[in-house]
Amino acid sequence: MTTAPPSHTELAARAAALDAEAPLADTRGRFLLPENVVYLDGNSLGPLPAAVPPVLDDVLHRQWGTDLIASWNTHAWWEAPVRVGDTVGRIVGAAPGQTLVGDSTSVQLYNALGAAAALRPGRPLLVTDPDHFPTDRYLTDSVAARTGLEVRRVRPADLHGLLAAEGDRVAVVGYSPVDYRTGELHDIAALTGAAHEAGALVLWDLCHAAGAMPVRLDALGVDFAVGCGYKFLNGGPGAPAFLYVAERHHEHWSPALTGWTGHADPFGLHDTYTPAPGIARGRIGTPPMLSLLCLEAALTVFDDLDLEQVRARSLSLTGFLLRCAGTLLDGLGFEPVTPADPERRGSQVSLRHPHAYGLVRALAARGIVGDMRAPDLLRFGVNALYLSHADVLRAVTCLREIVTTGAYDAAPERGAVT
Amino acid sequence: MTTAPPSHTELAARAAALDAEAPLADTRGRFLLPENVVYLDGNSLGPLPAAVPPVLDDVLHRQWGTDLIASWNTHAWWEAPVRVGDTVGRIVGAAPGQTLVGDSTSVQLYNALGAAAALRPGRPLLVTDPDHFPTDRYLTDSVAARTGLEVRRVRPADLHGLLAAEGDRVAVVGYSPVDYRTGELHDIAALTGAAHEAGALVLWDLCHAAGAMPVRLDALGVDFAVGCGYKFLNGGPGAPAFLYVAERHHEHWSPALTGWTGHADPFGLHDTYTPAPGIARGRIGTPPMLSLLCLEAALTVFDDLDLEQVRARSLSLTGFLLRCAGTLLDGLGFEPVTPADPERRGSQVSLRHPHAYGLVRALAARGIVGDMRAPDLLRFGVNALYLSHADVLRAVTCLREIVTTGAYDAAPERGAVT
Repeated sequence: MTTAPPSHTELAARAAALDAEAPLADTRGRFLLPENVVYLDGNSLGPLPAAVPPVLDDVLHRQWGTDLIASWNTHAWWEAPVRVGDTVGRIVGAAPGQTLVGDSTSVQLYNALGAAAALRPGRPLLVTDPDHFPTDRYLTDSVAARTGLEVRRVRPADLHGLLAAEGDRVAVVGYSPVDYRTGELHDIAALTGAAHEAGALVLWDLCHAAGAMPVRLDALGVDFAVGCGYKFLNGGPGAPAFLYVAERHHEHWSPALTGWTGHADPFGLHDTYTPAPGIARGRIGTPPMLSLLCLEAALTVFDDLDLEQVRARSLSLTGFLLRCAGTLLDGLGFEPVTPADPERRGSQVSLRHPHAYGLVRALAARGIVGDMRAPDLLRFGVNALYLSHADVLRAVTCLREIVTTGAYDAAPERGAVT
Repeated sequence: MTTAPPSHTELAARAAALDAEAPLADTRGRFLLPENVVYLDGNSLGPLPAAVPPVLDDVLHRQWGTDLIASWNTHAWWEAPVRVGDTVGRIVGAAPGQTLVGDSTSVQLYNALGAAAALRPGRPLLVTDPDHFPTDRYLTDSVAARTGLEVRRVRPADLHGLLAAEGDRVAVVGYSPVDYRTGELHDIAALTGAAHEAGALVLWDLCHAAGAMPVRLDALGVDFAVGCGYKFLNGGPGAPAFLYVAERHHEHWSPALTGWTGHADPFGLHDTYTPAPGIARGRIGTPPMLSLLCLEAALTVFDDLDLEQVRARSLSLTGFLLRCAGTLLDGLGFEPVTPADPERRGSQVSLRHPHAYGLVRALAARGIVGDMRAPDLLRFGVNALYLSHADVLRAVTCLREIVTTGAYDAAPERGAVT
């Protein structure tokens, strides 16, 4: 740390003070994180919760291995999509019976968007964010092409203008509360209210919000929401996604993927499809139970947590990260793109730098795991449940060290998995 | 065994002789089956392969737990859907690059059926089997309703008649080679040839065939196929499904579910969807890696197996089961519905009995695990890799015992999971 500037001492003292007062300091033990790693990529893949291995061992040997097919009943595998859905529901502010777990976010988006649009017949527009994660844009395009609708790509900041001009033509507004690249937080309440005032429905993609902050789906009157299980919910690589459909839409929503497990009487082997009541009609095929039960075990991390506290600590960490960057990286070619205003900040910090790729690789070689998004964003996901302010300072100090010593590959290259 | 008839001795001798000559007698050790269980439900959920637990332990602790996000590259998670697809491809007669693993059979059916129909524009008919597994029928109806096509439910035996009458109007014929209830085997070659002669495409659902018998997808010129990973492939509960698309369709097929992982350049974060070349455009969202890598480990069971031998032993076992039933259950109210002709028999034996549900439960209580299909079918899946002729005799002897002593609940009820 020979190149550390004088201000490092003050930042270290500040980190120690913040860590001492933090209410969630003991939750790190709920994760099996490798020693000496600062994991700032939990918004791509959450780490392994300690609760997972014993559960998976039981699922393998006692349930699948020993009880075999009977486990669908005796170990309540059959109910898992709805049961685990309710657990996710508690984390995103949904009363029971409105959230389902299964499939991928992409599949859920397709089903939800098509069903939402069909609830607003005569309205030809699907609104999405030009900066939305690609899969949201691709599936919006696909649904539109297959149903004769049009897509409007409008940033959340410009939604009011669009609604003023042609709000009565908008069927569904599909946004994410958190920009996956910049970490900017959009106002779910205001955007949902504006869409509703125009008579449209909303579909929120909560991939970068669920588990990182309180989301009040019921309270805000959200219509549809989806999200993945493997980022802030720590459900494992490619963990099943979730789908929320507000109860008021249960009678009429009609998913395109009419798989047998969503039938009202799946074992009756009926000739034609009769959708199950409620959220259960969102079930499609037989769910990947190992991944699903892994997610269920991972969610026990949240059993006793107050998401307001999680959010407060997350903001403290991201605020401190921005402060460290402002102090230690000043003049080194970085531009913070994540808003300084806490109300506009998700649970990540992104810094622009022309050598983002090389810097992220050099950081990883030193045990600081972040990621990058093409072409020039270093992205640091901040999970309040296992990161400390000291970790954040270590990460930024290390980044300063790498940049000032030129210890990175300056060749441009492409990035990693979302 | 006080009620065993005289013929039991001869059957036992025959079982011993058949087991002695069977070439696959040592493959049972590849599965962690509970002692004293005769597992005749591997066509609902294959048992736990011994190769799975150490792999999953590695995936959990070393890959996810320690290497975290880097595992997408360092442990080749990203390539898994195509890599495992090629492994399945070897089992179903597909050259590399045409088979993909992921999602559920239902999702794959939706994507495949829509894409197949679009390759035959101007032909308004989708043909399916009225006796097809429900999800196939429901998704055929859904695709038809959403694309303005019509569905014709025609049994395989009646396909020629339909094609003669309106073959030039048929876009896709979607069948299963094995009737999931009766175990009847349909002729993939003949039906594929007939459909092709009429200018239609075929979509085969191989759920009850893959891993149980040779399937020669390439050799027979099949267009599309799907199947699940959790029956005869033993990939675990809800294991990811597979999708086969013949290479000649790769340039033009266009799945509805345009998820980001099917993009030609998924990390380029492009504005619009450009499909990946080949089978990879069938990728949708991030796959459930635990379930997917579990399937990959399970498939090592097949590494050195000759599926012709598997099929021969399967036919020996199902033939012996029918013979045992004919001898030991004669006059006890059973009607075999699985064809006696080996060429028309899949890898299961179904018996009709008015008290199917109670009988299957009574069998399970005695360690003989089969299942039933409403309203009156006892269904015995026969997996040649871990069942012996002695097992089969034990099962039928036990069934005889239960029926003759009335030791079962005669109340009718509904059945279990496919």
